[in-house]
Amino acid sequence: MRGAILAIGDELVSGKVANTTSFWAAARLFEAGYEVFELLTVPDRKENIAFHLLRLLKETDFIIVSGGLGPTEDDLTNEAVAEALGLKLISRPEILSRIRENERAQGLPVNTLRDKMALLPGGAKPLSEDLSVAGYLLLYQGKPLFFLPGVPSQFRKLFSEKVLPYLKSRLPSGLVTVSLTLRFFDLREAEINRAVREIGISGVELGFYPVFPEVHLTVTARAKTEAEARGRVLSLAERLRACFPEHLFGEDEEELPLVLGRMLRARGATLSVAESCTGGLMASLITRIPGSSDYFLGGAVTYANRAKVEVLGVPERFIRLFGAVSREVACAMAEGARKRFGANFALSVTGIAGPAGGSPEKPVGTVWIGLSTPGETVARKFHFPGTRHEIQTLSAYTALDWLRRYLLTGNLYPTYRFAKTP
Amino acid sequence: MRGAILAIGDELVSGKVANTTSFWAAARLFEAGYEVFELLTVPDRKENIAFHLLRLLKETDFIIVSGGLGPTEDDLTNEAVAEALGLKLISRPEILSRIRENERAQGLPVNTLRDKMALLPGGAKPLSEDLSVAGYLLLYQGKPLFFLPGVPSQFRKLFSEKVLPYLKSRLPSGLVTVSLTLRFFDLREAEINRAVREIGISGVELGFYPVFPEVHLTVTARAKTEAEARGRVLSLAERLRACFPEHLFGEDEEELPLVLGRMLRARGATLSVAESCTGGLMASLITRIPGSSDYFLGGAVTYANRAKVEVLGVPERFIRLFGAVSREVACAMAEGARKRFGANFALSVTGIAGPAGGSPEKPVGTVWIGLSTPGETVARKFHFPGTRHEIQTLSAYTALDWLRRYLLTGNLYPTYRFAKTP
Repeated sequence: MRGAILAIGDELVSGKVANTTSFWAAARLFEAGYEVFELLTVPDRKENIAFHLLRLLKETDFIIVSGGLGPTEDDLTNEAVAEALGLKLISRPEILSRIRENERAQGLPVNTLRDKMALLPGGAKPLSEDLSVAGYLLLYQGKPLFFLPGVPSQFRKLFSEKVLPYLKSRLPSGLVTVSLTLRFFDLREAEINRAVREIGISGVELGFYPVFPEVHLTVTARAKTEAEARGRVLSLAERLRACFPEHLFGEDEEELPLVLGRMLRARGATLSVAESCTGGLMASLITRIPGSSDYFLGGAVTYANRAKVEVLGVPERFIRLFGAVSREVACAMAEGARKRFGANFALSVTGIAGPAGGSPEKPVGTVWIGLSTPGETVARKFHFPGTRHEIQTLSAYTALDWLRRYLLTGNLYPTYRFAKTP
Repeated sequence: MRGAILAIGDELVSGKVANTTSFWAAARLFEAGYEVFELLTVPDRKENIAFHLLRLLKETDFIIVSGGLGPTEDDLTNEAVAEALGLKLISRPEILSRIRENERAQGLPVNTLRDKMALLPGGAKPLSEDLSVAGYLLLYQGKPLFFLPGVPSQFRKLFSEKVLPYLKSRLPSGLVTVSLTLRFFDLREAEINRAVREIGISGVELGFYPVFPEVHLTVTARAKTEAEARGRVLSLAERLRACFPEHLFGEDEEELPLVLGRMLRARGATLSVAESCTGGLMASLITRIPGSSDYFLGGAVTYANRAKVEVLGVPERFIRLFGAVSREVACAMAEGARKRFGANFALSVTGIAGPAGGSPEKPVGTVWIGLSTPGETVARKFHFPGTRHEIQTLSAYTALDWLRRYLLTGNLYPTYRFAKTP
């Protein structure tokens, strides 16, 4: 069973308003086992609407149309539908009286421009029982065509409460879809893809999504039963976990800071951070997670050198002798943060995020990351590519990932693509 | 002159990834005076891609295609193009050697799966001079067809640097569009809209975009000459600036932290921050701005109460008597941060971001913000709505905005929608 989604509106094709509802609806349809043939966005123009309606009627089992149902001049969907399908536009008295009622309730003057909203193609069945929002179902050649308002909240409500239940009962997809997203850090798509090919897969679909700075692989299986679909997905996931025990850090909504937090909580351990070039981003990533106060004690954003000395106790001579971006300062920052906040572990970042501040010996992207554990304090040099914000993001994620991998394996020196020192 | 945008990818039609680049590109085309005929999103399926390419070639002057250029099996765009247009796929030695070079530079093993990325339809002209990203131009029946990578950052870069300049020089639209985005904080769309109606406008189009937690209003005019279009836009902008001298804080890319930073730099003043529930977000927003080290000295993320006492010198009895979320603690945090970092100004935030931790007296969303100036230290109570991350974001932005408005007007108590104390 397959459907298409057609969104109508000049404001959409001119990019003034991003069409988010089509993608939202596509995800719901896909989850319910339907195939989405295409997503289309066209201007408020009758001939374009009519052309695609007729074309999609041939290609699909159902069509979901949004937008163009309002009272203004550029709302042309109903006229386009009537022309394309050879139907008459019929004024619906129950909708007309509801329009007048609304005007009275809101103390508005009678506005006959709104009467247009009561003119529906013959055979249209309004979707909202109390007629509080526009939108109708039209059966044509036995195929359901749904016309929904473009306003996202109204679209979503009618879609969830009317469209999806209708489809499930009248056009059952007969398929169960199971999806799992695997989240990787510090691996390229191509490397994961090679592993997938070597494993040899069948009966699952793969989708790679780089969600900077992570790579996400979504594994999807459709089958007659949930058990069968789930079995296929989990079997590939298990093989990939064996291939990449360190890089595959989480599933679905498990963000890296959440996974690290869970590991710290399980150990009853605490963390603090010291940040220079990431400027608070690392702490912010940690504290976005609800309940992070269980393991996160705090951080120091020591942007100025004086702050490194006074807040974290970095020896002033380290900065003088080695520079603020150095192994010595990264170690002193991490150790200072661990002691200052009384934490078990601390991470530090000091580097050059750019665009200014680089030099031949320490170009933009040079970052020292420090890790202080109860036993020892070490630092490693990285060279990250990208813009200022990308360098900040890669630095913060790499620091968090380093502690995660250390907790996982006990190895203080896991391999990183951008690492310049062991 | 009109064009169409075709995005390719199973992950897009299944709603797993929202196609944001098509709408972004549509907005840029519209601004440049082009008509956007339609936006299409189709799965990785050769026959669908080929059908739409041939159809759109008849309807439009140019086509922009994104996605499906990568090395994996589901990347079928080049094959589809070759089939649809009757072109041969030709292996490009310069791309092949660039692929091998990249592998060497990154210490990766040779992966011949990547060779596929060098197989382009005959006549294709790579868009990136150094071949660092996929993407090419194909002239077919004299019409430019652009094939760009689906990765948003790569798409945007090639679109801005290659596609748009090409179109402007080879297919001039004949119209000049001038757009200006006005950025507001702590105002509702409806309030701005009412002001716009009272001003009475003509010859400009308006688009409201809530970009949480700001509201953006884009004013666009199209005219035969740039002077005429610019005149219309600037005249409305000036009237709105007079209406909202405090709330309209910036234009186009002027983010709130950038505007505040510019004011601090102009005064030769410095800033530090103390954060509890925002957990580093405020510092992170400040330090995302290049050159922020000119005025930002540092911050303390004092998540645990002990850190508030030890790092910022908050009297322990304040926490005991009034609680960590209180006027007294907010003031002590701000003053502590100002002194600790030796800054002229300091901001502090302490509150309950949720989802847990609320109580009847201090429900989730209760946030105290402190502002310490060389002359005095004050704090105000706010009640912010939303999820954890929304409360954190509103708190951080409101704190930065408070200092901005204080520097602008000298008033320590500007009005805020969510303020609970003067």
